[in-house]
Amino acid sequence: MSKTLAEIAKFLDAEFIGDPKIVIKGISGIKEAKDGDITFVANPKYNHLVKETNASAIIASKDFSAVTQKPVIRIDNPSLAFSKVVSLIFPIEIKHPQGIHPQAAISKSAKLGKNVAVGACAVLEDNVEVGDNTVIYGGSYIANDATIGKDCLIYPNVSIRERVKIGNRVIINNGTVIGSDGFGYVTVDGVHRRIPQVGTVVVEDDVEIGANVAVDRARFDKTIIGKGTKIDNLVHIAHNVIIGENSLIIAQTGISGSSTIGKNVILAGQSGVVGHVTIGDNVVVGAQSGVTKSVDANTTVSGYPAKPHDIAKRINACMQRLPRLFKTISKLEKKIEELEERLKNK
Amino acid sequence: MSKTLAEIAKFLDAEFIGDPKIVIKGISGIKEAKDGDITFVANPKYNHLVKETNASAIIASKDFSAVTQKPVIRIDNPSLAFSKVVSLIFPIEIKHPQGIHPQAAISKSAKLGKNVAVGACAVLEDNVEVGDNTVIYGGSYIANDATIGKDCLIYPNVSIRERVKIGNRVIINNGTVIGSDGFGYVTVDGVHRRIPQVGTVVVEDDVEIGANVAVDRARFDKTIIGKGTKIDNLVHIAHNVIIGENSLIIAQTGISGSSTIGKNVILAGQSGVVGHVTIGDNVVVGAQSGVTKSVDANTTVSGYPAKPHDIAKRINACMQRLPRLFKTISKLEKKIEELEERLKNK
Amino acid sequence: MSKTLAEIAKFLDAEFIGDPKIVIKGISGIKEAKDGDITFVANPKYNHLVKETNASAIIASKDFSAVTQKPVIRIDNPSLAFSKVVSLIFPIEIKHPQGIHPQAAISKSAKLGKNVAVGACAVLEDNVEVGDNTVIYGGSYIANDATIGKDCLIYPNVSIRERVKIGNRVIINNGTVIGSDGFGYVTVDGVHRRIPQVGTVVVEDDVEIGANVAVDRARFDKTIIGKGTKIDNLVHIAHNVIIGENSLIIAQTGISGSSTIGKNVILAGQSGVVGHVTIGDNVVVGAQSGVTKSVDANTTVSGYPAKPHDIAKRINACMQRLPRLFKTISKLEKKIEELEERLKNK
Repeated sequence: MSKTLAEIAKFLDAEFIGDPKIVIKGISGIKEAKDGDITFVANPKYNHLVKETNASAIIASKDFSAVTQKPVIRIDNPSLAFSKVVSLIFPIEIKHPQGIHPQAAISKSAKLGKNVAVGACAVLEDNVEVGDNTVIYGGSYIANDATIGKDCLIYPNVSIRERVKIGNRVIINNGTVIGSDGFGYVTVDGVHRRIPQVGTVVVEDDVEIGANVAVDRARFDKTIIGKGTKIDNLVHIAHNVIIGENSLIIAQTGISGSSTIGKNVILAGQSGVVGHVTIGDNVVVGAQSGVTKSVDANTTVSGYPAKPHDIAKRINACMQRLPRLFKTISKLEKKIEELEERLKNK
Repeated sequence: MSKTLAEIAKFLDAEFIGDPKIVIKGISGIKEAKDGDITFVANPKYNHLVKETNASAIIASKDFSAVTQKPVIRIDNPSLAFSKVVSLIFPIEIKHPQGIHPQAAISKSAKLGKNVAVGACAVLEDNVEVGDNTVIYGGSYIANDATIGKDCLIYPNVSIRERVKIGNRVIINNGTVIGSDGFGYVTVDGVHRRIPQVGTVVVEDDVEIGANVAVDRARFDKTIIGKGTKIDNLVHIAHNVIIGENSLIIAQTGISGSSTIGKNVILAGQSGVVGHVTIGDNVVVGAQSGVTKSVDANTTVSGYPAKPHDIAKRINACMQRLPRLFKTISKLEKKIEELEERLKNK
Repeated sequence: MSKTLAEIAKFLDAEFIGDPKIVIKGISGIKEAKDGDITFVANPKYNHLVKETNASAIIASKDFSAVTQKPVIRIDNPSLAFSKVVSLIFPIEIKHPQGIHPQAAISKSAKLGKNVAVGACAVLEDNVEVGDNTVIYGGSYIANDATIGKDCLIYPNVSIRERVKIGNRVIINNGTVIGSDGFGYVTVDGVHRRIPQVGTVVVEDDVEIGANVAVDRARFDKTIIGKGTKIDNLVHIAHNVIIGENSLIIAQTGISGSSTIGKNVILAGQSGVVGHVTIGDNVVVGAQSGVTKSVDANTTVSGYPAKPHDIAKRINACMQRLPRLFKTISKLEKKIEELEERLKNK
């Protein structure tokens, strides 16, 4: 849907500089943008791309300082503005399934709220409870005694295991498993005996989970994903892990059993956390890092074993210089030998 | 279900110290435990938590030495005892599906043993064989000519591919794929041509597999998961891998094609093993390690490339001291210069 | 099916040395081969296994130089020859499902080409289009407005999300998700707000994808998997990633948002690529490496952060020698002290 620059600025309630009649037909990243697109710059580190972009207009922050002839909309939070403009230009009708598909398999004891949708070949077992307006796509499986809140989106081929509790406005992408058995064994005479995993998982309100994630149920008690936390694809969350509110767990990260992750934590991609440690609020763990002990709040750590990021960077810089260091040492050895020789001859 | 301390001790056939009438209502980890819970300490390294726990009783090993006023049940294997107590206090009725759901899709040529359950929207293709008492949950897919033994649990949305053989008492968690095509290509003039993957997978008795695991079929011959081996979530097992008995493969580990893993091996989380190597019996591979060549039996290795753990630790300790080392070297360089100057002036 | 050596050589149109009447009953890897098997050696580094193999015949390259008494078929591309022989000896009938299963759930608005198969409990939503001869296995889910080309194989429990476009001759293994939501949030006052992911995914012709892979849809525009690229199990491909033709992405690799991967690139297992970088054509990234910035074409990189492989190897070699280096330095310190003492006393 085309909009003029003036219409977009008015919709955002923002100031702008440039021809109000410019027509915007699409939205794009600053690199990919072509004539007719609007783009955005939220981070000054991308300012250098401004002069190269083919976009017809730019949404930027109020303190945007790049020099450009392009029309600019200035607004406090350009990223947020951008997401609003996306909905304005591409008013995607949300075509989720509606109503109960005749090929869904729903137990008679399941309790569905108002306006619930259940797709074809979805299975809802005994005593499942689903809140109002929740959509359960085809091919998903909701086990006995699981409860799902209001306004949730459960995409196809998701598994929600027995007794798991899902809050309101939760989104779970395809293939994800919530409540698989924790990995707990007792080794008796060389044979691994299963410890019953009688706990469950609680996924709080506004959590969003990517594709093919695995969240294990607690051995006893609960594995908890805190309110507003977002989890990327292929993440592993072991039994009895507790994650605080509004944390971001990036793709392919693994959290071992019984570890506690604070609020507003970021675990970057492919990072790992050992079991039984505590990661404080606002901690950032670098990509591919391995956290082997507890981390104080408000810290950035990286590397293996994870350590304060500035120290990790210093060590890393040293490593890059190792080949030269070895040469330096060889030279020093020779010089010392020479000095020793000379002193001997005195 | 509440039990007194005396009842629990009697059930375990174990000694205890403390008031026999204390009522235990729940079970919990030593940190999370609250009044009325029983907890356990299997590993002396958690003894320091004993004085802080709110548990009403502790199950511990016979040589447990922490000082505590709490009632203590002493027993040879506290972890095993604990798992027994779990079943005593939480006698979870196993509510697996029963019988054949009318919305299951079962080929006429499939052969089902006695007392087999098949859930809604599960698919069993031609010539599938399923042993007595096995439960195949809704949404799972069992391909042509696959066989599954007795007393197995196949959770929802599992895929078992053509001709795969699953033993007895095998548990497979949701979303796992057994028998996907091996990753084998021949590059002819820059184009990757598929090598037919005509082998299969054999999963032996008592194997348990987590959620969203992928086990590839062999190019020819068999990929084998040995008896009693336990596999955690999101593990990748490539074509023609052979894993021995009673090994533990922790979450997000990957094993490349044609590698052989011994018995009682532990591959810790996010570790990787290259193709065509052999890992001996009783080897332990550290978390996030990368095994690039064969590893002798009874060894612990870690790091990248994986090396004996004590060497890896020593190297790691050196790395932490690198920034200081660089300073030391600078000082030494200056001192040598000074010495050279002084000698010159003599 | 048994074949004589002469029959196999004739079928391959290749020279051979040895008894033409030798009967080949099976095919096997050089280590596993037993009497009656034919095996192959494509890479001289496996020549040392030739003298130990129990195979009855060997397919090798024209410049094969290992000494052996075994019959040898010499041919330009032994790997390709091997894959042909596999089909000759094991003429596996491809028993894919045929026709439309009565328990498939297909929207009336879906358009199916000629000879399309759809398995039990597969779901095809509104306006799905499927090309001729494509097989969609049971338990898979194809969302609204998705299109799938001709001659594709979509294995069970695959999810193809709304508006995704799949080319011709594409193979997707079980549990894989194409078109899950990209991980894009704007943090406003500490709360992560979802950026609508209104783009899609294009999977070009001849792409093959392993099991439990996750490919995210673009925020806007398209995530693209280039023609002929092959993707192994449990790989994560984030939103707006573009992968060129004929690349190989090995198991458990992760590619972050908006990165561009060239043609004929190899990303080895468990490697990671940060967002917004470009990896040139023909680049090889080593296993478990972390790519933190753009990589020039025709380069091999490894380590963390990924650097040219020969430099990474040199640094790695230095690291192994660090404990000895520390001892050397201690000795040098002492010698310098001694020298200083001696000079002082002069």
